Amino acid sequence: MTTKYVYHFAEGNRGLKDLLGGKGANLAEMTNLGLPVPGGFTITTEACRAYLAEGAEPKSMRDEVTEHLARLEQQMGKNLGDPTDPLLVSVRSGAKFSMPGMMETVLNIGLNDTSVRGLAAQAGNDRFGWDSYRRLIQMFGKTVLGINGEHFEHALDDAKRAKGTTNDLDLHAEDLRGVVETFKGIIADQSGREFPQDPREQLDLAINAVFDSWNAPRAVLYRRQERIPADLGTAVNVVAMVFGNLGMDSGTGVAFTRDPATGAQGVYGDYLQNAQGEDVVAGIRNTLPLAELEKLDKACYDQLMSIMEKLERHYKDLCDIEFTIERGKLWMLQTRVGKRTAAAAFVIATQLVDEGLIDLDEALTRVNGAQLAQLMFPTFEEEAGRERIATGIAASPGAAVGHAVFDSARAEELAATGQRVILVRRETNPDDLPGMIAAQGILTSRGGKTSHAAVVARGMGKTCVCGAEELDVDVRGRTFVGPHGVVVKEGDLISIDGTTGTVYSGEVPVQPSPVVQYFEGTLAADADPLIAAVHRLVAHADSLRRLGVRANSDTPEDSDRARRFGAAGIGLCRTEHMFLGDRRQLVEALILADSDEDRQRALDALEPLQREDFIGIFAAMDGLPVTIRLLDPPLHEFLPDLTELSVRVAVAEATNRPDPDAVRLLAAVHRLHEQNPMLGLRGVRLGLVIPGLFGMQVRAIAHAAAARKRAGGDPRPEIMIPLVGAVQELELIRDEAEVILREVAESSGVEVRTLIGTMIEVPRAALTAGQIAEAAEFFSFGTNDLTQMGWGFSRDDVEAAFFSAYLDKGIFGVSPFESLDTEGIGRLVRIAVEEGRAARPGLKIGVCGEHGGDPDSVHFFHRVGLDYVSCSPFRVPVARLEAGRAVVSAEGSDSR
Amino acid sequence: MTTKYVYHFAEGNRGLKDLLGGKGANLAEMTNLGLPVPGGFTITTEACRAYLAEGAEPKSMRDEVTEHLARLEQQMGKNLGDPTDPLLVSVRSGAKFSMPGMMETVLNIGLNDTSVRGLAAQAGNDRFGWDSYRRLIQMFGKTVLGINGEHFEHALDDAKRAKGTTNDLDLHAEDLRGVVETFKGIIADQSGREFPQDPREQLDLAINAVFDSWNAPRAVLYRRQERIPADLGTAVNVVAMVFGNLGMDSGTGVAFTRDPATGAQGVYGDYLQNAQGEDVVAGIRNTLPLAELEKLDKACYDQLMSIMEKLERHYKDLCDIEFTIERGKLWMLQTRVGKRTAAAAFVIATQLVDEGLIDLDEALTRVNGAQLAQLMFPTFEEEAGRERIATGIAASPGAAVGHAVFDSARAEELAATGQRVILVRRETNPDDLPGMIAAQGILTSRGGKTSHAAVVARGMGKTCVCGAEELDVDVRGRTFVGPHGVVVKEGDLISIDGTTGTVYSGEVPVQPSPVVQYFEGTLAADADPLIAAVHRLVAHADSLRRLGVRANSDTPEDSDRARRFGAAGIGLCRTEHMFLGDRRQLVEALILADSDEDRQRALDALEPLQREDFIGIFAAMDGLPVTIRLLDPPLHEFLPDLTELSVRVAVAEATNRPDPDAVRLLAAVHRLHEQNPMLGLRGVRLGLVIPGLFGMQVRAIAHAAAARKRAGGDPRPEIMIPLVGAVQELELIRDEAEVILREVAESSGVEVRTLIGTMIEVPRAALTAGQIAEAAEFFSFGTNDLTQMGWGFSRDDVEAAFFSAYLDKGIFGVSPFESLDTEGIGRLVRIAVEEGRAARPGLKIGVCGEHGGDPDSVHFFHRVGLDYVSCSPFRVPVARLEAGRAVVSAEGSDSR
Repeated sequence: MTTKYVYHFAEGNRGLKDLLGGKGANLAEMTNLGLPVPGGFTITTEACRAYLAEGAEPKSMRDEVTEHLARLEQQMGKNLGDPTDPLLVSVRSGAKFSMPGMMETVLNIGLNDTSVRGLAAQAGNDRFGWDSYRRLIQMFGKTVLGINGEHFEHALDDAKRAKGTTNDLDLHAEDLRGVVETFKGIIADQSGREFPQDPREQLDLAINAVFDSWNAPRAVLYRRQERIPADLGTAVNVVAMVFGNLGMDSGTGVAFTRDPATGAQGVYGDYLQNAQGEDVVAGIRNTLPLAELEKLDKACYDQLMSIMEKLERHYKDLCDIEFTIERGKLWMLQTRVGKRTAAAAFVIATQLVDEGLIDLDEALTRVNGAQLAQLMFPTFEEEAGRERIATGIAASPGAAVGHAVFDSARAEELAATGQRVILVRRETNPDDLPGMIAAQGILTSRGGKTSHAAVVARGMGKTCVCGAEELDVDVRGRTFVGPHGVVVKEGDLISIDGTTGTVYSGEVPVQPSPVVQYFEGTLAADADPLIAAVHRLVAHADSLRRLGVRANSDTPEDSDRARRFGAAGIGLCRTEHMFLGDRRQLVEALILADSDEDRQRALDALEPLQREDFIGIFAAMDGLPVTIRLLDPPLHEFLPDLTELSVRVAVAEATNRPDPDAVRLLAAVHRLHEQNPMLGLRGVRLGLVIPGLFGMQVRAIAHAAAARKRAGGDPRPEIMIPLVGAVQELELIRDEAEVILREVAESSGVEVRTLIGTMIEVPRAALTAGQIAEAAEFFSFGTNDLTQMGWGFSRDDVEAAFFSAYLDKGIFGVSPFESLDTEGIGRLVRIAVEEGRAARPGLKIGVCGEHGGDPDSVHFFHRVGLDYVSCSPFRVPVARLEAGRAVVSAEGSDSR
Repeated sequence: MTTKYVYHFAEGNRGLKDLLGGKGANLAEMTNLGLPVPGGFTITTEACRAYLAEGAEPKSMRDEVTEHLARLEQQMGKNLGDPTDPLLVSVRSGAKFSMPGMMETVLNIGLNDTSVRGLAAQAGNDRFGWDSYRRLIQMFGKTVLGINGEHFEHALDDAKRAKGTTNDLDLHAEDLRGVVETFKGIIADQSGREFPQDPREQLDLAINAVFDSWNAPRAVLYRRQERIPADLGTAVNVVAMVFGNLGMDSGTGVAFTRDPATGAQGVYGDYLQNAQGEDVVAGIRNTLPLAELEKLDKACYDQLMSIMEKLERHYKDLCDIEFTIERGKLWMLQTRVGKRTAAAAFVIATQLVDEGLIDLDEALTRVNGAQLAQLMFPTFEEEAGRERIATGIAASPGAAVGHAVFDSARAEELAATGQRVILVRRETNPDDLPGMIAAQGILTSRGGKTSHAAVVARGMGKTCVCGAEELDVDVRGRTFVGPHGVVVKEGDLISIDGTTGTVYSGEVPVQPSPVVQYFEGTLAADADPLIAAVHRLVAHADSLRRLGVRANSDTPEDSDRARRFGAAGIGLCRTEHMFLGDRRQLVEALILADSDEDRQRALDALEPLQREDFIGIFAAMDGLPVTIRLLDPPLHEFLPDLTELSVRVAVAEATNRPDPDAVRLLAAVHRLHEQNPMLGLRGVRLGLVIPGLFGMQVRAIAHAAAARKRAGGDPRPEIMIPLVGAVQELELIRDEAEVILREVAESSGVEVRTLIGTMIEVPRAALTAGQIAEAAEFFSFGTNDLTQMGWGFSRDDVEAAFFSAYLDKGIFGVSPFESLDTEGIGRLVRIAVEEGRAARPGLKIGVCGEHGGDPDSVHFFHRVGLDYVSCSPFRVPVARLEAGRAVVSAEGSDSR
């Protein structure tokens, strides 16, 4: 049996996106719904794959095109390129995923030196005929033959100049006939061949050009960046032409079945009389609100309304459509499920539930965590008087206000005086890092979503607008100039909206997110439609999800907040955070201790402080598990900086003011200095090398838990050992800890069940998880370190240095620190889950890296069967939503 | 069916080591050979496992012991503890692997207050009877009841003091009877129970004590360190006592069937009249050479010779034995395959082949690469006049001579003036690292094979003797004092032998290794028996091995040497080594380049230099593959040190002598500074971020190959991309390289087949090897980086900081940088081999980390099916030998 390569629209349906592409599948769906779709057929992605593999279209495909073309001609009652009444077709690419960088459309195929006259005669409009022919040659030359479009544009400009005009409409039929001749000359000159007069040859060449465009460099790059498989191929749609530019009874428009900005019910769209789609895009004339069409052509308007209602009920979602009216007859050119804002997504999803179109499970698939996260950022108040200067690319969300500064040093300086600053640069590079850290937000005039500024800002969770190309940034002059001559000087206040990309002059008041206020408990669930929708969908996600959601928190205050946000415990309490600040001296003394006595003194001083820390957290999380990670700092975080100290000592010597304390300290810092602190004496290694350190922490935990329990509380401590690479490390610490837990239980007379488990953050731990599980009551993945070690790069060093290059080159689709690299690092996770549970059935497994709050990663963690994710308190609602969505999502689908 | 827990000696054989332990299996073997072995039986390791699991011996085991004891009594014609003629037995532990730290032996079980008189009467020697009883109580108290041995020693000393003597032999029967009473008192006081008079109770308690000793802390630690499984358990041997101390017609001895030092044929041993084994160990009297026995007791001597010949023919190897003569009757107490020196191992193995006892395959299993490596170190000349000061632990082999220095700073100072130094310390710590690097060798008076000094010296390949406890090191006084009052002061010449542990005063002349001279081609293969043996066995290994052996070499000189040593190409040519020295300025300019022009200028200057480098190496390796790794330095290796430069700038400022050049450079160094250079901008990342860098190297390789080929050579370049973590990285560099290779082929008119492959050194590369293989023509494992990233520790930082602690605690059996961690890192290797070959059948795979020359690791690489190993030229013969041994070794066995 030969493969079927071509589907008439009536033969397809929207389920065949893989084969027919998005556009083709939806055209088929509309055809089968009985909607007025121009005739046409779709050549499959499979044909494309065969073409690309063999360098030529399959023989049987050609025959099928012949057959389907004949059927189309019969259906339309015209023949392709017929001299007196030609059928014209458009050829449109249409892959499974919409893909900029591929050839998109060639219109008016079927016109040649003869049929152009037939078209003109049929339309009763010579100018229309020649203009259509001119457009065909231009598009064909550019997209099929690969001729630089400027040749055509220049020729058209010449023609206009000759007529003394700058408006296409002033060119008459005769002028356009001359342009056609010139264009044909360009084709011959530039491609070495004549413009093909045979309509079928035009069609075949256009189809092959669509196939070839699958491998155009920009398309390849886009696929790399978006992780779209390289071997899908594109479908090709061949559609009978209809014309919205045949007079004032014709026109073209776009519409949405609801408001895509707010989700409000009621259609929403634009209409342009006597125009084709490309004219709408070119923006030559202002469009009319769709409601005006009712006055212009009530029949068409009513038909359109009824179609839109039908489509929405059929697709059970907001649809956007493109349509054309040709001399009073409505044609549907495209539909798809429409894009919408985050707020609209929540509102529409619950509306559709109330309208009985979908159930709550389905509604969950219509929103996502990234949208919820967006709704949790503060925003600028919507009020009059905001002065927009420019709009760039929304690179990292949030609303930031500050004084404009133009270099990193100045940013640090002003920030040090307590001022808020916005760092403004043409583009950033690693030198700008200190300034980026000091700033409230970053604004650049160049670069896209993968530029250095964008990547680093997202990594820091800092507001960023990049690529605001309307701005002329003069770093030396410390000013930038906006498009309407607005000048902003150093120190002037500006406001940037990282969610929309808008730049404002002056201070725009910031309003807190009502969604956050709802989670905080200060706004009621029925305060407005958006909050009601969020409340309902998050609650439904909670009812479905299998993943628990905990928070990473090191203080009672954060723990309180996390609990309000819905955290079911603490997945990561980092004790090293408790060792900084005032206590740094004690820790320094501990590390530098020369004798057992000095060390013990330092430990004895720390223990009661640690105990109080834990009592507070156990109280905040009463009745819920609290996973406490024993100390895991790189050593140098507790010691003076080697370079600073060296400079101090050297300068003291050079100026004859010896500083013996500094000299002594320097010797110790030298001794403990590490080339690669990330790979040095950290975590369990420190615990094994500094006697008593982990023991002190375990004792503090045990006493704190006993104190809480005696006071009537319900503390649930879980002790977590960091950086374990071999089961022997864990066994040694575990043995020590168990002795201490028993001692405290005996001395206090209070027994608190305390789990002992381990981080899985060193690749070797994942690779030997079966052994490690024998000694661990739980696993918690530290996917940050696992990513750093698995890829062999440290976030601090490489994110700023080369991630933007890597994203641009398509090596990453997304930073592996943002979303877990499921192929590489995820494989370690999978191995550890499988083998850990095989060795210890029912082993409790969670994740406490930052990926725990990342939507894509949450789906992955659900799929591999983790028990919980733990993330920053702020991300808890996002994780709850995504954990529910993961249940209703199909296996393997992502969260976007 | 109940399990059989006890085997009479006649029921076992040497194949049952797992069940009967080494000692028991060999006693059984000798029994079945008809040799005069005292009667006895072995309780199995399985019984031990059951005992340890259940906390009591299995009921049926007790019954079996009863039965076998009866059989033994019948065989010996005496009953255990019989009042008039008691059978006495010894209880000896015997695990599969010899294990210090376990209870070893209790002698004379069966004696009590009554039977002691029977024994005395039978022996006709009261003193013998009471001394035997005294020994039983002492050993039983110490090893079975766990009483501190000092109690007994003090009591014995008291008795001697009372007699005014220091010699046991001056204590008469009556004195010893008093000692027995005192000892019984000690037992009662210390253990709270009477010394058991029931012989069977003595026996049962001793058996259980052996079982318990399996889990003694020192035994547990030893197993951890030696990677002996914790669940094997030990066997227990119960053997009828024979006495070598019944008069001058009795005695005891040890013997080897050949000289274990040189391998020379002919027996070799010691004999001590009227003594028991423990007396030989105590060294109270001087032993006689074995040949003397012929004069003392010709019959026994002849019988012994015949037995030894029989044993050697039976075991087909050098055996060592222990024997006792009781009143003119010879008894064999133990035999096993004997330990020998490296040289003896090679000589004996080939002798046995010539004697027709084994074939060459078997001979290969009798030697190993560690022995061959030992033979390749220079040694001290064997001549009169060497003054031995002390002997410590042979921690890292080699022969080093230098001036004694006592601290790190002084070592660096003297070394800087061109002097050779030996760093002498009580023990070393990370502070001593610079001095250790500066020194020829390291000598310490404390610490064992896993001490800091030993671990770090082995890591550096530097000679080290540690734990020379006879030395009294006075670091402040800058002297050390030897056992005979020898004083060595700072600056005095000393010589240390890291292969034997010997310390000499003065300069001992060093002689080069004859084995190396043979490989170098300056000594003939028949120069002496050792070289002939090495030649023959390495040649046999070559004929068997499936693994190729290449060398790591960056210069024509090293490449020449590697080829003489048998390397079949270069597996790793590190181009960063070519970038140091004079060219550092150019590289610095390249890295700091502000503009494309500056960068290109630096690249243009480097290209011809690189080209010459490669031409030389291709010439040395003509006709053999040369794998060239593109640049992979941590960035900071090419830049001035941040701290030094900061000090320079600060001091210049503080002293009002501004240094604008340094200020500018400092800014750049700051910009490029990395927290963790190991995890920073290295390898392929540098190649992707610095335009033209890798291209320049590829062009230099291509031109060098073309030049060689035009000159009639046969260059076989293989281009290797370092630090790849994702296939996309490789694809990008590969595309660039292929364009350049084509360009050079066209411009030079010479086509050189050039493979392009990748290092697998980042864990993620191993985890996604299936994808990477699509773009790689070969893989080469960089197991150093794979180990660093897989374990999450950097060698530089952690080896000195905590490896000795980790080895002591048994977390490692051996440093994972010495021998590949086959469980964790080896798993990554296995995954990459399997999935790489699945994606690209026949993919060529090698390893070029230092593990390529490590014996254990070579076996692993053979097992997982690599094509070749690559190691330093010096290790090439070792790798050849081990690659052959891997073929004849049983699956899963190690190389030791």
